[in-house]
Amino acid sequence: MNRDALAGLMAEYGMALDEDRLEDWVELFEEACDYRIVTRENVAQGLPNVLIWCDNKNMLRDRVESYRNVNLYNPHYDRHVIGMPRIVSESGGVVTFDASYSLFQTTLEGESRLFSVGRYRVDARLGKDRTTLKSVMVIADTGLIPSLLATPI
Amino acid sequence: MNRDALAGLMAEYGMALDEDRLEDWVELFEEACDYRIVTRENVAQGLPNVLIWCDNKNMLRDRVESYRNVNLYNPHYDRHVIGMPRIVSESGGVVTFDASYSLFQTTLEGESRLFSVGRYRVDARLGKDRTTLKSVMVIADTGLIPSLLATPI
Amino acid sequence: MNRDALAGLMAEYGMALDEDRLEDWVELFEEACDYRIVTRENVAQGLPNVLIWCDNKNMLRDRVESYRNVNLYNPHYDRHVIGMPRIVSESGGVVTFDASYSLFQTTLEGESRLFSVGRYRVDARLGKDRTTLKSVMVIADTGLIPSLLATPI
Repeated sequence: MNRDALAGLMAEYGMALDEDRLEDWVELFEEACDYRIVTRENVAQGLPNVLIWCDNKNMLRDRVESYRNVNLYNPHYDRHVIGMPRIVSESGGVVTFDASYSLFQTTLEGESRLFSVGRYRVDARLGKDRTTLKSVMVIADTGLIPSLLATPI
Repeated sequence: MNRDALAGLMAEYGMALDEDRLEDWVELFEEACDYRIVTRENVAQGLPNVLIWCDNKNMLRDRVESYRNVNLYNPHYDRHVIGMPRIVSESGGVVTFDASYSLFQTTLEGESRLFSVGRYRVDARLGKDRTTLKSVMVIADTGLIPSLLATPI
Repeated sequence: MNRDALAGLMAEYGMALDEDRLEDWVELFEEACDYRIVTRENVAQGLPNVLIWCDNKNMLRDRVESYRNVNLYNPHYDRHVIGMPRIVSESGGVVTFDASYSLFQTTLEGESRLFSVGRYRVDARLGKDRTTLKSVMVIADTGLIPSLLATPI
């Protein structure tokens, strides 16, 4: 049953971002959470570069607030298609899993293109009523342009 | 268990279209069904434009029959990769859910390209033996060219 | 529960390839296995062409060993996003299913592109402890360049 709960969690995750419900996306996380975006190349080379790093939920809230202004300058639609979770380990109610993603962006004129592919490495806490995100590391295969305009992946 | 049944239904849906088994695709719907394709832009602006709209199963049957002639002029392979369902609500045996899709087209020469991304908004009826489609709205991020040649998404 | 086990198996399959853990990928197969890559065009025309054909696990092991040398000349990252399995039949503990895939490749410079889309036709054996691959046929919509450099899909 775990995989189903995790797949449901990632479906919520992707759909919240794609529908521009960033505040709902933040609510999937715990207060003591960690969210970061890195590139696979940096991970392979042991480099510490991160594009986004929020190490608690208030930082995520701040980030989302700033997106609300920034998005005025970079309007587009996101679309995540996320693969099934691969469960890596489980301990003390926390499941670690990987899931591949493809992320497409569409201009307001309706032109779509591949924006990023990569993998989520997630720690999720299985609660009685809901499953929450403890940690999400986005490991992007695609190179990323460090930018204040960057939206979550 | 619902998500699994819904994921299975959408796997049937995509594979029937991709294998050009359009008649099997129609059989996933109820008689009193609704199938339409709209763009996200139109939904956002409250515009009533639809690319395809069939409001019962006989209209779907007619549509498929016309594709069988039309496809002579637009031969290609479709490939749907559909994400996990996000369950929105459930009431009286009908589940409403969203699922992201990516749709690729390949020419007979073997060249593939991204054709459309977007979201399905589905009402499905959970029966004892099988789950059926009551309503499918394709909300395409990608702009669509209104065309008699249009195949279902 | 079968679909969940199969989805988990394909998540392992894709992630092993994407993380360049080719030896782990081989271990998903039985000793008396069959792995081949064909194009949809060839299947439609009844042509016998195959890009890769390994009809037992030792051939897969040999193939992976040769990749280890070949990859020096074709470095890239793979990323599979695989759809939910569509179960075709089940008999004697062996499940036959289809799953759509999209495969993206990224250069070491971080540029991603669509590489191949298509379908897996899989026979999997449901064991008590684990599910194993008896046969995988990759039916690629996208045309393939026959090449010693070809990596598994």
